[in-house]
Amino acid sequence: MSLAYGVFAPAGEPPRVGARRGDRVLDVGAVAGTALAPLLAAGSLNGLMAAGPAAWQELFAIDDAPELALADVAVELPFAVADYVDFYSSLEHAANVGRMFRPDAEPLLPNWRYLPVGYHGRAGTVAVSGTDVARPRGQAWASGADGPRYGPTRALDVELELGFVIGAPSRAEEPVPVSRALEHVFGVVLLNDWSARDIQAWEYQPLGPFLAKSFATSIGAWVVPAQSLEAYRVPSAPQEPEPLEHLREEPWAYDLDLSLELGGEVVARTSARNLYWSAAQQIAHLTSNGARLRTGDLLGSGTISGPEPGSRGSLLELSWNGAEPLTLASGETRTFLQDGDEVVLRGGTPDGAVELAEVRGRVAPSSR
Amino acid sequence: MSLAYGVFAPAGEPPRVGARRGDRVLDVGAVAGTALAPLLAAGSLNGLMAAGPAAWQELFAIDDAPELALADVAVELPFAVADYVDFYSSLEHAANVGRMFRPDAEPLLPNWRYLPVGYHGRAGTVAVSGTDVARPRGQAWASGADGPRYGPTRALDVELELGFVIGAPSRAEEPVPVSRALEHVFGVVLLNDWSARDIQAWEYQPLGPFLAKSFATSIGAWVVPAQSLEAYRVPSAPQEPEPLEHLREEPWAYDLDLSLELGGEVVARTSARNLYWSAAQQIAHLTSNGARLRTGDLLGSGTISGPEPGSRGSLLELSWNGAEPLTLASGETRTFLQDGDEVVLRGGTPDGAVELAEVRGRVAPSSR
Repeated sequence: MSLAYGVFAPAGEPPRVGARRGDRVLDVGAVAGTALAPLLAAGSLNGLMAAGPAAWQELFAIDDAPELALADVAVELPFAVADYVDFYSSLEHAANVGRMFRPDAEPLLPNWRYLPVGYHGRAGTVAVSGTDVARPRGQAWASGADGPRYGPTRALDVELELGFVIGAPSRAEEPVPVSRALEHVFGVVLLNDWSARDIQAWEYQPLGPFLAKSFATSIGAWVVPAQSLEAYRVPSAPQEPEPLEHLREEPWAYDLDLSLELGGEVVARTSARNLYWSAAQQIAHLTSNGARLRTGDLLGSGTISGPEPGSRGSLLELSWNGAEPLTLASGETRTFLQDGDEVVLRGGTPDGAVELAEVRGRVAPSSR
Repeated sequence: MSLAYGVFAPAGEPPRVGARRGDRVLDVGAVAGTALAPLLAAGSLNGLMAAGPAAWQELFAIDDAPELALADVAVELPFAVADYVDFYSSLEHAANVGRMFRPDAEPLLPNWRYLPVGYHGRAGTVAVSGTDVARPRGQAWASGADGPRYGPTRALDVELELGFVIGAPSRAEEPVPVSRALEHVFGVVLLNDWSARDIQAWEYQPLGPFLAKSFATSIGAWVVPAQSLEAYRVPSAPQEPEPLEHLREEPWAYDLDLSLELGGEVVARTSARNLYWSAAQQIAHLTSNGARLRTGDLLGSGTISGPEPGSRGSLLELSWNGAEPLTLASGETRTFLQDGDEVVLRGGTPDGAVELAEVRGRVAPSSR
């Protein structure tokens, strides 16, 4: 089984870099060479990631080290997030949102097929799997109300995404070509972009989502090296129209099966093959204006939805904005999340050889 | 003259915290106590800012230290930016943008008077005054063209803003009340939110500005303590409608005169009194969903424009989106910026007692 990298702390010891294999954690720092060891003694992956591919290869070559049981250690956010960018790269997701909110217009806005639409999110509220998420408060104008109110969101949602973690930085004013983009990616995580749809609807014009998303973004505790997924890049359908030259490549996607669980029940199954824009295109776009990548930049794919109703990666889509509640095995129904609900994202290659670390989060009541 | 704080490096020495007074830099670390000195030996203000108000007061009390000439030292970005949020808090600016881009509708969108609209920008491209800004490339769809093209922006603009620098962090899930918000603010800088209007127009729907802004944001090298401006808080007009309770306070603004220079000529004079939403309201809003403030968070006010044509803080407004070119003293005209143009933002209290550090930037040609 492949290894994934994160930060762990045995009871009473400071956090350090480890490698997860199944339910074991390898204390890789204990056997690393003198150049690598200090990078692994740190409380985040950032030093290692910044050191670049040669250091990564040295780490990836370690497959025998003192082991601890995963259950016996605390895990922490695996890296300090520099900038967090969230894209919108699943065609079915973007089209579903368009159908719901602009029913009389084309589902996709005119720019969608020409560039990977994205925006910056809040790096400071990215949290590791297992962190409870308090129901956010915010301003919303309910249908029929005579004005906006401030209170707990009534439309708390999840978004099933992949997150790409930048290891090697790029230089300012040097756009990264599509063909070199993956060289900057250290690894991949699952990402839950928690969203409050009522807050979002009221606030997002004209500058985009802000408080509807900034309260929490959850990622897996263990980062799967992008190189472990190299064999799982598969061709995808031609992009139409063909992208402009700086975004052009042979269309591909990661072959990763993904699922969304609510209260232990799978409510959606989808695939990273449903992404229209690739991570390489996202990176080429992000740097196309001269902006540089920094170690620790986190790039979300956007919600991943497929064409079938059961393959949609958000409750907004699964319940069609509340019009079609989900019925769970217990007989309960859901449109958006209730306090106490636990959501888990899972993913991995179809052959089971590479597993993405789960992203687990429970909804806590609004705290005040 | 009041002091401002930043990071300087004499030739051949490492960068450290200093205090600027006019054209001199005080090497405050050389005379600081044993607790404060290590914070001042760092290459950023972050350690000092995180240490909180007691440490700040100890620093502010130092008014005699070895001096260097400002001209003899290099200055650096004064602090590492955590999250960068840009607001949209000048009513005249938001209304001007509405009049230009939605001529048949109300100038302000429905949410504008209920909350300080804002979005996250790119922390990784915030640069110190004096840094050249290469004309960004990007995708835009020119009027009359048969599709988008990728190339250097034809509508490079500036935005004259104030930036509020967060010193003391807040706790997650504990919204900061308006009445306590300024306790978290270490200081104030001028901020130029460089913008590419053609890229912005094509990309911004539905998730807001991204590459149109993310190539560069310039701030002053020296941070003026918020406490130095406390005596320059003045009442402002009542907000209509009255904000919801969590955003409600006696309306106030900073009494700061501001100017925008292009090629050495003042092309706009405005005032921070033209801000409708205060920094305190921005902070209360930002944290109202449970998000925490981190040391180094940077909050832009949004472009500051007054009601008179000569008081508008962007070329977009000064040239009315290119329809009314500015004529400079040289006889040259400008709609948006040309390569080689130098822009300077200046500001200070009307009595001259407190000066904000200038923000200077020259437009370099697109590098590739």
